[in-house]
Amino acid sequence: MAQAAEPPSGTRDFLAAEVRRRERAFAAVRAAFEAYGFEPLQTPAFERLEVLTGKYGDEGDKLIFKILRRGEHEASGEADLALRYDLTVPLARVVATHGNRLPMPYRRYALGPVWRADRPGKGRFREFTQCDLDTVGSASPLADAETLLAINDGLVALRVPEFRFLLNSRQALFGLLDAYDVPDELGARVLITLDKLDKLAPDAVTAELTVRGLPAATASSLVADLAADDPERVRKQLDGTERGRAGLAEVDRLLALTAGLPPGRVVFTPRMVRGLDYYTGPIFEVTAPDFPGSIASGGRYDGLVAALGGPDLPACGGSIGIERILSSQEGSDRDGTAGREPGLDVALAVLVEETEPALVELAGRLRAGGLRVGLYLGASGKIAKQLKWANDQRARFVVLIGPREHAEGVVTVRDMQSGEQHQPRSPDAAAFLRERLAGADSATDRAAR
Amino acid sequence: MAQAAEPPSGTRDFLAAEVRRRERAFAAVRAAFEAYGFEPLQTPAFERLEVLTGKYGDEGDKLIFKILRRGEHEASGEADLALRYDLTVPLARVVATHGNRLPMPYRRYALGPVWRADRPGKGRFREFTQCDLDTVGSASPLADAETLLAINDGLVALRVPEFRFLLNSRQALFGLLDAYDVPDELGARVLITLDKLDKLAPDAVTAELTVRGLPAATASSLVADLAADDPERVRKQLDGTERGRAGLAEVDRLLALTAGLPPGRVVFTPRMVRGLDYYTGPIFEVTAPDFPGSIASGGRYDGLVAALGGPDLPACGGSIGIERILSSQEGSDRDGTAGREPGLDVALAVLVEETEPALVELAGRLRAGGLRVGLYLGASGKIAKQLKWANDQRARFVVLIGPREHAEGVVTVRDMQSGEQHQPRSPDAAAFLRERLAGADSATDRAAR
Repeated sequence: MAQAAEPPSGTRDFLAAEVRRRERAFAAVRAAFEAYGFEPLQTPAFERLEVLTGKYGDEGDKLIFKILRRGEHEASGEADLALRYDLTVPLARVVATHGNRLPMPYRRYALGPVWRADRPGKGRFREFTQCDLDTVGSASPLADAETLLAINDGLVALRVPEFRFLLNSRQALFGLLDAYDVPDELGARVLITLDKLDKLAPDAVTAELTVRGLPAATASSLVADLAADDPERVRKQLDGTERGRAGLAEVDRLLALTAGLPPGRVVFTPRMVRGLDYYTGPIFEVTAPDFPGSIASGGRYDGLVAALGGPDLPACGGSIGIERILSSQEGSDRDGTAGREPGLDVALAVLVEETEPALVELAGRLRAGGLRVGLYLGASGKIAKQLKWANDQRARFVVLIGPREHAEGVVTVRDMQSGEQHQPRSPDAAAFLRERLAGADSATDRAAR
Repeated sequence: MAQAAEPPSGTRDFLAAEVRRRERAFAAVRAAFEAYGFEPLQTPAFERLEVLTGKYGDEGDKLIFKILRRGEHEASGEADLALRYDLTVPLARVVATHGNRLPMPYRRYALGPVWRADRPGKGRFREFTQCDLDTVGSASPLADAETLLAINDGLVALRVPEFRFLLNSRQALFGLLDAYDVPDELGARVLITLDKLDKLAPDAVTAELTVRGLPAATASSLVADLAADDPERVRKQLDGTERGRAGLAEVDRLLALTAGLPPGRVVFTPRMVRGLDYYTGPIFEVTAPDFPGSIASGGRYDGLVAALGGPDLPACGGSIGIERILSSQEGSDRDGTAGREPGLDVALAVLVEETEPALVELAGRLRAGGLRVGLYLGASGKIAKQLKWANDQRARFVVLIGPREHAEGVVTVRDMQSGEQHQPRSPDAAAFLRERLAGADSATDRAAR
């Protein structure tokens, strides 16, 4: 029972404060993306099993939540559906399904839960929200630039401070392999090792490259040039190869198109390798001092939509690691509203049954004016208990109509901050409260909602 | 492939226009509920299987989507998790899990998808959104009244015209059975038959009651009194029994507490039986002339939270049939915004590569001012093609910088409604466009977003 009462392993219940914090973040990102003309897309929680299997590699396939067939087929123990594992495969499926109903290029964002049967751990969940933005059907470098710019604006909207884009290009990486005469068959493994330069000491990386079969001299000059963190050294090498020049051109065009961003926001980072081999053009990762790992990433992946079952269209896009950002900001006041859960504007105390209709009517008038109003719903007729409840609800004002107020045709209004009390006439109560609440502090509360 | 490209049977892809229409509706309902102090709650898409099974009857159990165990256990063909079937069982589980972290009474709304393996049909989906509002931990009639009032405000916010609440009480139904000396063992079946009075002719209902074992004289007087649609006749009968009097008192107190609603909005309807036998107090259904069946319903169900695995707390609540309302409104202009999908405020035509950085920079300045701006991302350098794209995007203005504009330091701004063209200097372009867009029609567009 104790265990059954918990949500399933790796999932979370979001109570009010957390729902509000998350929805504020989601709304901020949506608004940033909408300004670029990206459109929202929502797909079902599950897809046909065959749409998902074989798309995420053997390890990924094992993490797919599969849904049992139903009715007479349940006993077969077979699955026919599966919870979506990311938002990219559903995008490819949507482009296949609705192709001619979609504007081309199709620029969509998607913000919603995905499910992976990963081992749950700190910050790692089985149900978590992804935040993707993609442009399908454009080969223009402007589309790549707009991906970076929109993600930049999304991160600014999320109040992530001091982040920067590490920019590279798959062509530049191939050019790097060419420039140092890395044999083709070692290329992929060499890149995977080079990607560790942000975590391991240069010597360790050189050693690993040698173990992987790269001649020692090649390994040490490659690592020396990349670890120097001097893009000019690497640029010179790239300039000597065809693929290297193509990569540099891609990078430089993107740097020019994003030159309006704050200085240092986008940095050519020749050692940055995105692990996923479906990237075909520019690639990027975003890092920020306060956050472990990357908080956004993406690039161009021209063959991916076709590989995932969609039509053969060029595409690029990126993703904000919104769960990572949300959990880093947990408890902090980074968005300026933590601990400012909206309380009630007005709490109505219920002391005498005959006054209930009058209180309900007053509540209706206040709500019609945009206020958040609660009635005491407990069993106690004691004023102290009701004031405690109003206090727990962080109510700004309490209104009570006891027998005396009822007889005199007034209400008692108590300011829960100052403790002051007033007794406007019943018909004037709504106007009285609206006026008091028009004050600055309450406006702040409501803005934070 | 053709079939694989469709979303799974009974599910839907929501493209931009539909996402926006749905989100507008959801936001309207949320705002209505928030005004009452109801709090949002979001629970995982799936629960442990044992949390769901046995809660929905044999027929319901068959419609649960079950998730296969993973890893080495997958071969067992057994399920350990299941997609949530409604929002009520997760609520009971949350009250069990987080009991002492929740305010009491706990008043929450939930708006999210549920999954049922029903046979898909017109307006019947396997993934659909439910919209629930419940108060757990209060036995006060004020809680019942606030349920009705909040649902009323939700329906008003959804622009449902001319709806009304059919109000009844389980006590009143028991009193009815007492008043007509219906044997206890026939009670449930008699009520199920009486519920058909809104669809069948009185004679047919009388006949069915007789078949079910009710004496013919009893059956015809019972049906005559209920079909007369004269609550006074029934009131008189109820007044003669203890449970009937208790039921009338419940109904009358709720009528008094909701007296502020428009006349006729809440109607005592003695023949109205909610099929579900977990109701213990007042019950209601909402009907509206344009909508088949009921568009909202609810009541008091004091034993339900405990029966579903939560603590033993009184509770009441209701649900808006938001999918039914959304599909009835499809294509209509009921919400005043159909066909007003937001277009781009400004479309930027890309004619010459050297002008791209200037266009991207202009786009950034316009977006910072809150405008929705798109760049042409296609491959054509032809102005006609780019204007067609801008037109498809319902762009209000098009900006282009060709070689001549570039050389002269101006931009060409074309008003897509009037066809007028202007050539402000490049540095003034953003201000020029913001000024033009401050006009009334564009403000309407933006408000509709």
